[in-house]
Amino acid sequence: MSTDVVILAAGQGSRMKSKLPKVMHRLAGKPMVQHVIDNARALGEVNLHVVIGHGADQVQSALSDQSLRFAVQLEQLGTGHAVAQALPSIGEDAQVLVLYGDVPLTRPETFEALLKIAAQGHLGLLTVALADPTGYGRIIRNPVGDVVAIVEHKDATDEQRQIAEVNTGIMALPAQYLHEWLPQLSSDNAQGEYYLTDVIAMAADNGVRVQAIQPGCEQEVQGVNNRSQLAALERWHQMQLAEQLMTEGVTLADPARIDVRGALSVGRDISIDINCIFEGTVEIGDDVRIGPNCLIRNCRIGAGTVVEANSVIDGTVVESACVIGPFARLRPGTELAEGVKVGNFVETKKARIGQGSKVNHLSYVGDALIGRDVNVGAGTITCNYDGVNKSLTEIGDGAFIGSNSALVAPVSVGAGATVGAGSTLTKAVGDGELAVARGKQSNISGWKRPVKRS
Amino acid sequence: MSTDVVILAAGQGSRMKSKLPKVMHRLAGKPMVQHVIDNARALGEVNLHVVIGHGADQVQSALSDQSLRFAVQLEQLGTGHAVAQALPSIGEDAQVLVLYGDVPLTRPETFEALLKIAAQGHLGLLTVALADPTGYGRIIRNPVGDVVAIVEHKDATDEQRQIAEVNTGIMALPAQYLHEWLPQLSSDNAQGEYYLTDVIAMAADNGVRVQAIQPGCEQEVQGVNNRSQLAALERWHQMQLAEQLMTEGVTLADPARIDVRGALSVGRDISIDINCIFEGTVEIGDDVRIGPNCLIRNCRIGAGTVVEANSVIDGTVVESACVIGPFARLRPGTELAEGVKVGNFVETKKARIGQGSKVNHLSYVGDALIGRDVNVGAGTITCNYDGVNKSLTEIGDGAFIGSNSALVAPVSVGAGATVGAGSTLTKAVGDGELAVARGKQSNISGWKRPVKRS
Amino acid sequence: MSTDVVILAAGQGSRMKSKLPKVMHRLAGKPMVQHVIDNARALGEVNLHVVIGHGADQVQSALSDQSLRFAVQLEQLGTGHAVAQALPSIGEDAQVLVLYGDVPLTRPETFEALLKIAAQGHLGLLTVALADPTGYGRIIRNPVGDVVAIVEHKDATDEQRQIAEVNTGIMALPAQYLHEWLPQLSSDNAQGEYYLTDVIAMAADNGVRVQAIQPGCEQEVQGVNNRSQLAALERWHQMQLAEQLMTEGVTLADPARIDVRGALSVGRDISIDINCIFEGTVEIGDDVRIGPNCLIRNCRIGAGTVVEANSVIDGTVVESACVIGPFARLRPGTELAEGVKVGNFVETKKARIGQGSKVNHLSYVGDALIGRDVNVGAGTITCNYDGVNKSLTEIGDGAFIGSNSALVAPVSVGAGATVGAGSTLTKAVGDGELAVARGKQSNISGWKRPVKRS
Repeated sequence: MSTDVVILAAGQGSRMKSKLPKVMHRLAGKPMVQHVIDNARALGEVNLHVVIGHGADQVQSALSDQSLRFAVQLEQLGTGHAVAQALPSIGEDAQVLVLYGDVPLTRPETFEALLKIAAQGHLGLLTVALADPTGYGRIIRNPVGDVVAIVEHKDATDEQRQIAEVNTGIMALPAQYLHEWLPQLSSDNAQGEYYLTDVIAMAADNGVRVQAIQPGCEQEVQGVNNRSQLAALERWHQMQLAEQLMTEGVTLADPARIDVRGALSVGRDISIDINCIFEGTVEIGDDVRIGPNCLIRNCRIGAGTVVEANSVIDGTVVESACVIGPFARLRPGTELAEGVKVGNFVETKKARIGQGSKVNHLSYVGDALIGRDVNVGAGTITCNYDGVNKSLTEIGDGAFIGSNSALVAPVSVGAGATVGAGSTLTKAVGDGELAVARGKQSNISGWKRPVKRS
Repeated sequence: MSTDVVILAAGQGSRMKSKLPKVMHRLAGKPMVQHVIDNARALGEVNLHVVIGHGADQVQSALSDQSLRFAVQLEQLGTGHAVAQALPSIGEDAQVLVLYGDVPLTRPETFEALLKIAAQGHLGLLTVALADPTGYGRIIRNPVGDVVAIVEHKDATDEQRQIAEVNTGIMALPAQYLHEWLPQLSSDNAQGEYYLTDVIAMAADNGVRVQAIQPGCEQEVQGVNNRSQLAALERWHQMQLAEQLMTEGVTLADPARIDVRGALSVGRDISIDINCIFEGTVEIGDDVRIGPNCLIRNCRIGAGTVVEANSVIDGTVVESACVIGPFARLRPGTELAEGVKVGNFVETKKARIGQGSKVNHLSYVGDALIGRDVNVGAGTITCNYDGVNKSLTEIGDGAFIGSNSALVAPVSVGAGATVGAGSTLTKAVGDGELAVARGKQSNISGWKRPVKRS
Repeated sequence: MSTDVVILAAGQGSRMKSKLPKVMHRLAGKPMVQHVIDNARALGEVNLHVVIGHGADQVQSALSDQSLRFAVQLEQLGTGHAVAQALPSIGEDAQVLVLYGDVPLTRPETFEALLKIAAQGHLGLLTVALADPTGYGRIIRNPVGDVVAIVEHKDATDEQRQIAEVNTGIMALPAQYLHEWLPQLSSDNAQGEYYLTDVIAMAADNGVRVQAIQPGCEQEVQGVNNRSQLAALERWHQMQLAEQLMTEGVTLADPARIDVRGALSVGRDISIDINCIFEGTVEIGDDVRIGPNCLIRNCRIGAGTVVEANSVIDGTVVESACVIGPFARLRPGTELAEGVKVGNFVETKKARIGQGSKVNHLSYVGDALIGRDVNVGAGTITCNYDGVNKSLTEIGDGAFIGSNSALVAPVSVGAGATVGAGSTLTKAVGDGELAVARGKQSNISGWKRPVKRS
């Protein structure tokens, strides 16, 4: 008995006012529909069907290579019609879970509970009690608690409108029912659409029990129709992630001011100051301290490292006990060994920097291989680009690069070598050598300062 | 029949604890009284009177050149006395709207509704229902709903204190009533002041109907008496602005973390990360992405441009498809053509940079005219200042400026020219030429490192 | 009659998931137990006893040199047992106030009120009414309002569970009672612990009145058991500090986005933009404006100074009317005289900079003594480190340092001297002299650009 998940992702979302199909808008850095897919995948072995329509190419290409089956809904004729597009590739004996690409945060546990009902031959319906149910379809239950009807707000009596429990549209049921019922749906209504909701009445008519369950919280079933709702759900989700981090032993200066857009794994006794952003896959070791306003993307940061304020670190491996920033900018391909210091106004890119080395001030280190215990002085530039090619700079263990030096790559500085301040190196420097490449100083007395031009 | 708006702006605001007159404190980057003036101007052709007192010179000079009529209230003898100062320059047949310089966010629609009442010969009064009306003057209505009295809290019976509707002080009425009634106001009260509120009783006495209307929300009539109230109103106002941006199709990472202090106009599918600030007049084109912690002031940013984290952009025109930052600082007079890249730790000022050119790292480019497809290497400095004069640096199309170069202005580098890394240019470089201006490298073996001084 | 304060600080706080003892976790930059100590010290002459256990060494060493008496609780056998550890060093005639190292924000006024009760021979108990008292010990009072019992939640009747008033554990009482009662405590309960709470029943039994008082707000008695509670209390405390600053006449762009972790003293008419952090002791003079995202630690900032966005200032004295940043990084030992400008991407350290001097762009100024009216050009580096020693750079009044210069310390530039752009100075420059130390420019025509490597 297979499980087939049908994700409706064909809507335009005109209130988003966007070229982007609605389900592609991002929440916590990931398209909403991807949240739904990932949460459905957590069920284990399932067939995933995505019904696309508006921006079909865009959605399909963004979701490629994920073993998804796409069904195209050429006309947006309602939710029932949408599910029908996926039905041909779903077997009679499957269990079907119907989800929505713009309802991103339903938990796998909730999916499981619905599928458990379907596995018993019933229809599992997800409902939620709202403080203000105005506008939503109310849930009518019989004396034993089964759902017998959904009454749309406009059709509801005053008494029915007092019902707080409403339909979310998320349901699970045996595929055979869909195969039987969907062809019977009618579009004889104001919108002229085929509503999946109508299968509830059909279930009642056919003696199929409809059992309702509720999500852990309202946000699980919150759909997104405009950017304000997207932002509200984003903030709620971020607050959940923040609570999770604190539970794991992270100190957050302000749980309302952290953004995690990807997979952040943490050790113990980490502290994260205000306004930090984590994107992609980030691993942070024990006792790491991250200062305010840092942006960290796709990094591994070793135990005991300190990242000072306003640093931007991307695609970088940082070993333990390093000190980074403030105002450091580490770009992809940077690898810092243990105890490295990279200071303010320093940019690195494709740079491996050895244990205990320091690049403390106003430098650019790109395409570089730097040994241990090297001191790179303030204002040092690796000239890695000649306009067409990138070349490597190699600096040996214990070398000392004087301030304001330019190292014209390809070039190497030997172990223990010294480069005089202000030098522009174009030739290799041997181990232990002193290299100086600068003009001679002349002091001229009696010089007249420029005068103000009129 | 003219419309005269009287804005009371004479109060000291002692609870602000400030040298600045209260109405000059800023909300969303603009003095509170300026909000009132701008919202009143939205009514169309109106005469604007500002009654000044405390810090009169400061207020008047800040509001000069706006076709305002100033009336000075030498002694702060109450709101009725304040309005009386402006009355001599208001004709008998005008409609008068009375506003307060410390109540900044009343909407023009509300003003219009009040003036419509006044145009019918009645007195239009703005009232508001408060959850906690303690301390405010309660509105007493007659059976047909007209206001017949305002009872101050201290004078109110227990029953009257149950009334949630209170006076805001904002009103509109025919000028003739003010001309008739204001001279009759009495200061026979605890404060010894002439209260404008007393005209309500006079209206009742004279058979003039007082019709009350309510604002769209409480914040419209929120006055500011201290910095805490100012901050609260600022945050509410910013949240309104954020909602408006989201409605227009902007994605905000956190609507509680954006500050707009001026006029921000936006295209579609813009995304703005946390903690951005927009000041002055800023236009942002479609598909622009703005990273976290950016400060953008008086700029135009073209479609598809990306501004990375922690950038400060002021007085700059950025064409489409540029990439800026992180940590870029663009100062007034910067103009970036299409596809320009300005990277980290780069400052520009009065610099026109041509299509596709790059200034990616640690550079200062000031007073410069740079062509297309130019590569300005890391650590390049335009030496535009000799201590008294600023001079121009010109760089032709396709030139390549090696890293760590200093260009001593006035100087020019021709099209297709190359400047060797580490050069200090003092003379022009012709088209296609290679210029090198640096010392020769000497490698010295056997050199002894300095030793630790004792 | 002495006052002895016993602070219980022996708990592990396993829900913190931390190596750090719970009471050492920081709130507003200071360990929680230090808040308790500092608030107790505000009572005046008191003996302070800290009962330590988990991480005893860590706590004791962090709190050394504060005239504290430490009592070690080897086994965590309950609050009564903990107080008993301190009792041997408390005289019979003392008043004892019992506090908790993880309840950081009780005000001294509250302590005083409790001690006043104890001084009358009664037991003063701090209680609080909670919206949801579930789980807490309920306060049972007699008809005259004295507390006669504390009933634990699990032992309470349904009626007693309706009582909102609960025990906080904070109390003051004559030491003689503790000496008498603590030895009588029993550990005959589910946890096998000696509960201090049981002294309430003993007081009732012995005819000692127990008078309860309440804190000013719930947060005063909020204990911290996990990082989420710590963060919640941090935010509440920060909001209180923000309100205090606004009351003192500071404009805050967003009271929810300021963090004060230490002692911040302010003048009038200061404005602080979003996301600023103040650490240690910071004094800010009148009319200072601080831009967004600044981190300011242990500084004095003089009147009228402007700190632009994204600046990090640490251990620095800034006199009046300076302009700093954006993107400035001032490190300890920096002293800026009146009217100094330090601009973007500039780092200073142990640098005294004289009145009116400017270091506007991309420079490193360390171990430097700079006179008045000096202009330090863009990209200037003081080469203060030779790998082992730090040396001084001295620049006289009115000197002009051309851009992209390296000053190899120890070196001096005389008053009124000029250094040509791109120079690397190794020798002293006399007053008024022009120093140039750079290569000669050669322009080579017919040069072929590098070609793309295959």
